Amino acid sequence: MEFIKQPMEIETRSMEIIAPYLEGMNLDEKAVKVYSRIIHAAGDVEYAPIIRIGAGAIDKAMGALRSGSDIYTDVEMVRTGINKRKLASFGGEVHCLIADDEVVAMAKAEGITRSMAAMRKFGKKLEGSIVAIGNAPTALFEVLRLVREEGIRPACIVGIPVGFVGAADSKRELAENGIVPYITVEGTKGGSPIAAAAINAMMYLINNDRG
Amino acid sequence: MEFIKQPMEIETRSMEIIAPYLEGMNLDEKAVKVYSRIIHAAGDVEYAPIIRIGAGAIDKAMGALRSGSDIYTDVEMVRTGINKRKLASFGGEVHCLIADDEVVAMAKAEGITRSMAAMRKFGKKLEGSIVAIGNAPTALFEVLRLVREEGIRPACIVGIPVGFVGAADSKRELAENGIVPYITVEGTKGGSPIAAAAINAMMYLINNDRG
Repeated sequence: MEFIKQPMEIETRSMEIIAPYLEGMNLDEKAVKVYSRIIHAAGDVEYAPIIRIGAGAIDKAMGALRSGSDIYTDVEMVRTGINKRKLASFGGEVHCLIADDEVVAMAKAEGITRSMAAMRKFGKKLEGSIVAIGNAPTALFEVLRLVREEGIRPACIVGIPVGFVGAADSKRELAENGIVPYITVEGTKGGSPIAAAAINAMMYLINNDRG
Repeated sequence: MEFIKQPMEIETRSMEIIAPYLEGMNLDEKAVKVYSRIIHAAGDVEYAPIIRIGAGAIDKAMGALRSGSDIYTDVEMVRTGINKRKLASFGGEVHCLIADDEVVAMAKAEGITRSMAAMRKFGKKLEGSIVAIGNAPTALFEVLRLVREEGIRPACIVGIPVGFVGAADSKRELAENGIVPYITVEGTKGGSPIAAAAINAMMYLINNDRG
């Protein structure tokens, strides 16, 4: 069977196929890149009408990434999906505490998820950083609590947890938080490759800016 | 905001929400588990009608996993998503060669994707193993070539690459291969968490079998 084997050709063709689904949505050039990479990662054009990007969120995130901000993730799959070589070129790195002994103990003691305990342990480190959540609604709820109750201000929250228990609610709360810039997806869909795709799209935009 | 924080409660509630979408599909108990974990991982009930499981594929995969077969993946995100502690309890481990120097060189020299080159390098090691593809259609096409042209017989191919270039075609070819048991999803949707979810579901079924 004949098929396209060359990586750049695959990517170019994929973006061409996605483009018509974004027409008439009044997206700026940067948003088009973020939308396209999310749709590409999900293989699902039905993401187009449910992606939500807060005003200025892409510029805020790009600014933070460009200046070497670190990224804090809920699960290892998001960390794996992020282009760490690109991130390191700006001076940043990715942190995930889901397998941290103290986090595991805290989660067990309090009857909460490990990813929620991980966000609590990150705490003040999230200040000025990028938060990337691709799995656990509980982690996103905890970050929003840190914002609301402890005054912590990430540069941008990419909050795209997935599933039927809390995901839609946590993402609605994110989109309505009124304080921190955000990138999210309405409803139950989401996941680690989606969150990682949004982050990678913004890093690739920085390289484009630099020419 | 009140929300469910307890991991087992989240999972149980999620499975309850998914169950009605599988009614009337005439699935056996094991297939229900695999379907449910896929839908759970995607947060997308529209997976229900597009999941395809070849006759005997779950039993074949479970038998291989139980006896300590290794798993070969196209990308690191699939490896990350697989429950490696559970796999190790059966004696198996996960292999991914996408960052292997020889694979990188082969991909560059031949103008193919690294994940395709990785499958070619695995070659005979795939015999009797579980193949788990969650990203690259090119990797799945290559595994199907190894089956067809080189007589290699994995125990089961979990082939759920994602995207708009080759994914649907490669998965159709998998479902029609007529030789190797398979688990796949029709169309453009898929991804690493989906492939990992199918694998994890089967490992958890083995533990249930054991009581």
